[in-house]
Amino acid sequence: MTYCVGIRVDAGLVFTSDSRTNAGVDAASMHSKMRFYGVPGERQFVLCWAGNLATTQGVVAQIERDMRDQAETSLLSVTNMGEAAEYIGALSLQEQAKNTGGGPAFQATFLIGGEIKGGQCRCYMVYAEGNYIESSVQTPFLQVGEFKYGKPILDRVLAMDTPLDQAAICSLVSMDATMRSNLTVGPPIEMYVYDAGSLQPGRYKRFEEDDGYLWDVKRAWNTRVKEAFARMPGIEWSSKDAGQQPPST
Amino acid sequence: MTYCVGIRVDAGLVFTSDSRTNAGVDAASMHSKMRFYGVPGERQFVLCWAGNLATTQGVVAQIERDMRDQAETSLLSVTNMGEAAEYIGALSLQEQAKNTGGGPAFQATFLIGGEIKGGQCRCYMVYAEGNYIESSVQTPFLQVGEFKYGKPILDRVLAMDTPLDQAAICSLVSMDATMRSNLTVGPPIEMYVYDAGSLQPGRYKRFEEDDGYLWDVKRAWNTRVKEAFARMPGIEWSSKDAGQQPPST
Repeated sequence: MTYCVGIRVDAGLVFTSDSRTNAGVDAASMHSKMRFYGVPGERQFVLCWAGNLATTQGVVAQIERDMRDQAETSLLSVTNMGEAAEYIGALSLQEQAKNTGGGPAFQATFLIGGEIKGGQCRCYMVYAEGNYIESSVQTPFLQVGEFKYGKPILDRVLAMDTPLDQAAICSLVSMDATMRSNLTVGPPIEMYVYDAGSLQPGRYKRFEEDDGYLWDVKRAWNTRVKEAFARMPGIEWSSKDAGQQPPST
Repeated sequence: MTYCVGIRVDAGLVFTSDSRTNAGVDAASMHSKMRFYGVPGERQFVLCWAGNLATTQGVVAQIERDMRDQAETSLLSVTNMGEAAEYIGALSLQEQAKNTGGGPAFQATFLIGGEIKGGQCRCYMVYAEGNYIESSVQTPFLQVGEFKYGKPILDRVLAMDTPLDQAAICSLVSMDATMRSNLTVGPPIEMYVYDAGSLQPGRYKRFEEDDGYLWDVKRAWNTRVKEAFARMPGIEWSSKDAGQQPPST
């Protein structure tokens, strides 16, 4: 299983992904699910993915070949982020169909974020069908893979004016919630943070299972949540609350 | 969709359920998904459920008929909580098969908690197949329905020594996270809190959508979470974090 989140706030992008693949509990192996590419001063991209490993590796390899071979369409030639998403979608469909004819078992979803000179910093999710959606002001994040456990904290915390470092910490807490509930999502955790408007490569971190900072975040969050609970408004019970029956179905 | 959680801590039980049924967004209707029964000083039960409405209503009706008719097996005759879970499982299988022959569309899952004199306070989840599991010291809660969004907060907060009122608030935060992420889970929210060892009917609350306390909990939690984030340890970036490439797949 996989969990990746792409956040786009005013200040830029945060992409965070786990590295567990093909994880029956006995056959857990690790693969990075993140890449970033760019031409300083001109364009920067970051990618994450979930789904069939052959499909995703095929897409990534083709993206890199297209750039190397200066193909007519590549991340070096697209003129806006929507075109980049469209390109990834087309590659994904092509890889899904290759050898296998396609079908649910070969599907994959991608997150692509980035910025091209003259445009804005953006974040898209590309569905297995090749179509795509963009993050919004109301929901400044997109997720692929095992997304439900980690969604509530993103919902509560993220807004367009959230500072990048806080968005980054939020993505780690979201990842931690997911790893705790689903053993097939696991470290190392990769994180890429891009400053909007810079058009320079972002900052990248890889947190191993025993990473001190990752443990600090985990511990601090657990402590804070318990503290927060101790200060929640108490329930006021009245005598009429005892021994009632709920209304009939 | 549905979300119900049953918590069993040392101090007793908290059961919390939503009331949205058959919720295409255009056809949302409300049905209680909770019942409680008992004989003061002898036995107390609380039930919640998710799944096919005909099946669950059929099971609840049969439970009530069996008690009224003093059937050989009923919640009045079972001698321990495991037997109660077994009984619900049998009724569920019977209802699923009746008229329809059964199948995934007619399935339902149940939570049953309670205490019978001479035994301990317990909480079970009954699967659609009729078999069941019990909550544990490590995981002192069980969920049915749309459970993923609301699980991380339960994981972080609940332990066997959590006071009942804190467990109750935790169930409301878990419910709020679920309602926020899934529009087909909705109020009124019902809550039943049973004091272990009392063998008396517990306290019951029904929170309507505009309930003042429910809004207080929502607001307080959002504020606390944001405060907690502002105090999380910051990420330490070093110059070597800039412009890296992730390792190859």
